[in-house]
Amino acid sequence: MTMTHQQDLKGVFTAKDLDFKPAGKITKKDLNTGVTKAEYAVRGAIPTRADELKEELKKNPEVLPFDDIINANIGNPQQLDQKPLTFTRQVLAILEYPEILRVGHNELASLNLFSRDALERAERLLNDIGGSIGAYSHSQGVPGIRQTVADFITRRDGGEPATPEDIYLTTGASSAATSLLSLLCKDSQTGLLIPIPQYPLYTASASLFNAQVLPYYLDEESNWSTNSDEIEKVVQDALKKQIRPSVLIVINPGNPTGAVLSEETIARICLIAAKYGITIISDEVYQENIFNDVKFHSMKKVLRKLQHLYPGKFDNVQLASLHSISKGFMDECGQRGGYMEIIGFSQEIRDALFKLMSISICSVVTGQAVVDLMVKPPQPGDESYEQDHDERLKIFHEMRTRANLLYETFKELEGIECQKPQGAMYLFPRLVLPKKALCESERLGIEPDEFYCTSLLESTGICTVPGSGFGQRPGTYHVRTTFLAPGTKWIQDWKEFHQDFFSKYRN
Amino acid sequence: MTMTHQQDLKGVFTAKDLDFKPAGKITKKDLNTGVTKAEYAVRGAIPTRADELKEELKKNPEVLPFDDIINANIGNPQQLDQKPLTFTRQVLAILEYPEILRVGHNELASLNLFSRDALERAERLLNDIGGSIGAYSHSQGVPGIRQTVADFITRRDGGEPATPEDIYLTTGASSAATSLLSLLCKDSQTGLLIPIPQYPLYTASASLFNAQVLPYYLDEESNWSTNSDEIEKVVQDALKKQIRPSVLIVINPGNPTGAVLSEETIARICLIAAKYGITIISDEVYQENIFNDVKFHSMKKVLRKLQHLYPGKFDNVQLASLHSISKGFMDECGQRGGYMEIIGFSQEIRDALFKLMSISICSVVTGQAVVDLMVKPPQPGDESYEQDHDERLKIFHEMRTRANLLYETFKELEGIECQKPQGAMYLFPRLVLPKKALCESERLGIEPDEFYCTSLLESTGICTVPGSGFGQRPGTYHVRTTFLAPGTKWIQDWKEFHQDFFSKYRN
Repeated sequence: MTMTHQQDLKGVFTAKDLDFKPAGKITKKDLNTGVTKAEYAVRGAIPTRADELKEELKKNPEVLPFDDIINANIGNPQQLDQKPLTFTRQVLAILEYPEILRVGHNELASLNLFSRDALERAERLLNDIGGSIGAYSHSQGVPGIRQTVADFITRRDGGEPATPEDIYLTTGASSAATSLLSLLCKDSQTGLLIPIPQYPLYTASASLFNAQVLPYYLDEESNWSTNSDEIEKVVQDALKKQIRPSVLIVINPGNPTGAVLSEETIARICLIAAKYGITIISDEVYQENIFNDVKFHSMKKVLRKLQHLYPGKFDNVQLASLHSISKGFMDECGQRGGYMEIIGFSQEIRDALFKLMSISICSVVTGQAVVDLMVKPPQPGDESYEQDHDERLKIFHEMRTRANLLYETFKELEGIECQKPQGAMYLFPRLVLPKKALCESERLGIEPDEFYCTSLLESTGICTVPGSGFGQRPGTYHVRTTFLAPGTKWIQDWKEFHQDFFSKYRN
Repeated sequence: MTMTHQQDLKGVFTAKDLDFKPAGKITKKDLNTGVTKAEYAVRGAIPTRADELKEELKKNPEVLPFDDIINANIGNPQQLDQKPLTFTRQVLAILEYPEILRVGHNELASLNLFSRDALERAERLLNDIGGSIGAYSHSQGVPGIRQTVADFITRRDGGEPATPEDIYLTTGASSAATSLLSLLCKDSQTGLLIPIPQYPLYTASASLFNAQVLPYYLDEESNWSTNSDEIEKVVQDALKKQIRPSVLIVINPGNPTGAVLSEETIARICLIAAKYGITIISDEVYQENIFNDVKFHSMKKVLRKLQHLYPGKFDNVQLASLHSISKGFMDECGQRGGYMEIIGFSQEIRDALFKLMSISICSVVTGQAVVDLMVKPPQPGDESYEQDHDERLKIFHEMRTRANLLYETFKELEGIECQKPQGAMYLFPRLVLPKKALCESERLGIEPDEFYCTSLLESTGICTVPGSGFGQRPGTYHVRTTFLAPGTKWIQDWKEFHQDFFSKYRN
């Protein structure tokens, strides 16, 4: 800083101006406790430690007992070398740089870079978008893309056509959930019925919006099924304590459990919503990630059926269904796109939601385009169909194979009880830890599963998230791991670590 | 819905299950009043009406007295045919579809589609990103891109180097501001010092987070300058009423006013922050949009100078500075990127902010890449420099020309008093409306400037935002318009409308 540059400020203040004792800095007690209390273990202490170890490895690859970090803490397939779908990325490249369309099809064909249907899809999307992905869109999202989503839902569910007016294109499913919850959390007597274990966005949102968590436990013994009687009991208990059970959150297929709800269970959830006037948020982002001959039923499809079967009984049910480009076969986590379909809400609630969503103007337009590509992939007869279909199938088979391989490995191991994978991207095995390990974790002042996950990370570089980060029945311990990492070496490393751990701490 | 499909649900419920009176739907009284009270006029009633008129025009182009809507309500240049920067979009296309890099430079060069430095920049970014823009990044953003931002800030401000640890890459500047405010708004006694007029994200945030707006009025007569004595008085008045003035929001260059703060004014703002322990949020998204030989000074640069000049006096000042790819010459509104630099905060506050930001995992990675391209454009000697530089200059000249043309037009008109444009993308002229117009608006039950803007829209298709949406001294009326729309016809249409309006309502 040259002196002349400073001198011009020197004369600004009088001695009187400067006659003050500087105030102190703010401290944690000056902050919104709803925010400071919110926890999100998926990027909590263990993944933060994993980032530190990654930096150490960059500086000195020999310093640790492993040569890489395996991020099994988060469903982030393209971080683990999964390739994006070619058709998707061809279309997105053209949307970013429409000049590509100026080059003739033949010249482009010679480069074998862009398929004809990718060029056509990009042209249609640019027309829907209004010319440039660099412009803000409508606050609910590009109308043409919302129509594509509505058509997808109608194809998936049959029955009454879905409409674009009910669709919001959002920055992933998470931002849709948090926006809607900020609107529905009226005050500290608002109760959120949250499955346990759950994706910790929901318990974090309860904290952020000063609402109360009303946990309903999933039944591990019956492969993490949902018991509607348990939900109803939680509702009645809450009402007795003057807490208003306002929102019922359902994650189907489950995160972290992978459990897929039966049509009957979904129907019983709708019954509770109709009976007590509870809004349902149905997080269905893993609806394409389903293995082992289990069928996905959307909450909306079942609700519409019930409305037909029992006129007048289910007509007041208010439902928001969420989907995301971060999962399924798209796995475009970094592109941040998703949609929310809202049905059953009165117009004044819809207006209040629209006003809230317009404050952040719109979601990222490329993410909206990826939603279009997710819900309307190339069809048989399209030039890209074969390749796109093969790529999706490869992803599906790889995920299923790895899920089953990890599950089979866990089954052989002492002190790990794992439910058969049904869907999503995770296994959530129970850890039955030896007493000496429980004592050691107590000595360290951390949860036993956090102790297990920390030891796993420091020994093998495998980064997972302890069950305590998702919620679990008191006295039980779990670990959530994805099964996305390529190869089998990390599974073998985990197995050896586990055996050593039990040798060291066996009673 | 085929009967068999429904029948399987028919037997699910017993008569007892169905023996309930359906609960009613939720109403506005069940919602979070902080959300329902929040207002955001930039996408409020008038722009919503403009969307309706646009739909009418699509169905019947002859039905209205104009043939298109001019969206002058929002700084959204690419909605009004401004071209994106070629270099930016070449790099983004390659990030979306790295296969392009597989094709040899010569073959690509023959197509005249991608410059060599665009290929190189894309390769560097892919390396920084870790391979695919489809993966979630670090919650603060890609480390390599944060380093590019830190280098930019160091070049811009001189002095102590900025560091990547102080940088967050965010989904535009708005999401950075709302996240930080959600953390800093402890309770209903939290006061937010907000300039009036202001970008209504800030008053909306005060409502969303249950804080109190402490308005400090900008001085229209001295081209919307900021008076630090006025701010200090507002602080002292608040303290007397047991309100804690916790955050001081500064928009420089101003929105909607375009005013550019002098170094002295900024120094005086820092003095207030140091004296009362108030955190500064400096919204500097228009720092590149400056005309007429006015110089931009970042809050950070002035604060660092004061810390050097007066050791110990300004060291506790906590500052968050915001920038965005939606403005400047990038104008990539739909791509949703920006950054926040935080300095002066204690480690526990930094940790609380990181935990909050990690709940939404990360901002869109393509938006992060555009931030890199914004703060590090092609340099002299680079293959793309000439073209990029010319494109930026063209945008600058067009904006300045249109700003001055609209200003000159307003100057000729009766009942419009406009300050000379200094920066940003808006004019915020004062409307001195005839009494008959005031009476008519009262009869209609709307604000006089809302009446003026509604009439303007219905007559010409020009969509603007009334001053009441930004805040103004009681009894004064304004209109915010962008000057981004191409051509001069719309300015001529506005002039004719204005003259007719005054003829109709002149006293």
